[in-house]
Amino acid sequence: MTEPLITWRGPVLAEWTDYNGHLRDAFYLLIFSYASDGFMAAIGLDAAGREATGCSLFTLECHLNFLHEVKQGEQVEVRTQVLGHDHKRVHLYFTLHRQGEEAELAASEQMLLHVSMAGPKSAPFGEVAARRLVDIVARQGDRPPAQWAGRVIRLPG
Amino acid sequence: MTEPLITWRGPVLAEWTDYNGHLRDAFYLLIFSYASDGFMAAIGLDAAGREATGCSLFTLECHLNFLHEVKQGEQVEVRTQVLGHDHKRVHLYFTLHRQGEEAELAASEQMLLHVSMAGPKSAPFGEVAARRLVDIVARQGDRPPAQWAGRVIRLPG
Repeated sequence: MTEPLITWRGPVLAEWTDYNGHLRDAFYLLIFSYASDGFMAAIGLDAAGREATGCSLFTLECHLNFLHEVKQGEQVEVRTQVLGHDHKRVHLYFTLHRQGEEAELAASEQMLLHVSMAGPKSAPFGEVAARRLVDIVARQGDRPPAQWAGRVIRLPG
Repeated sequence: MTEPLITWRGPVLAEWTDYNGHLRDAFYLLIFSYASDGFMAAIGLDAAGREATGCSLFTLECHLNFLHEVKQGEQVEVRTQVLGHDHKRVHLYFTLHRQGEEAELAASEQMLLHVSMAGPKSAPFGEVAARRLVDIVARQGDRPPAQWAGRVIRLPG
């Protein structure tokens, strides 16, 4: 199977946990937010790329599924897939894992918009970002399906 | 129109903002997480209620729409509606506003599960929480429709 694109890894910090020592919901999203930063770097939109192009990505919308508790000090990683993109949007899917393990601790689907900071105003991807997006999709190959994507929140039954 | 149920209010802290002084995505969710705590208190599941009943609410799933930038120091509030509930789940809808203003800065739909901490294992709402849920729904009256609920994330077109 193709290697996953890992866009963030690190330990679960004490200040991210609740009174039980478990990762609080918002800090799952902070980890995914750092993974978005890592993805931006992967398509040339790190701080230097943002400076050079005057562009960045804004998160429009996200969905999260909290699948397992995560404890302070655990070493985790985020695996990132591109579910789709057009000339100015990218649809991402992140899964959170203990480093090197397959079990999913959480999943997040997100839609991001490429924005010219001068407006701020939506703008087409530049040449570098567009080429790298295509490369990432090509390299995804046979990654596992995005099990938690496309969901609507509703009561069962 | 019925008064909204406000379950959190406060200022946007410096440590929640990014290099531009704007609220970072994960910290919108932290504000909604505090609003969940406020909702738990409203149904009798504050720290004392959790201790007395041995139960708490876990967030299973959430969806967020980021509608406007929010700056450090802005005074904001979260308005909370109950979209539905069964014997052990509650489906919530939160909107973020500048205090007293109607414009929505963000919206979040969430599904929470009532859990006995002894397991942890899902458990029916106790008598107090069940009665207060019904009271909150009855008092919601003619609150505005939940415009950002029920969404699937997808590329346009």
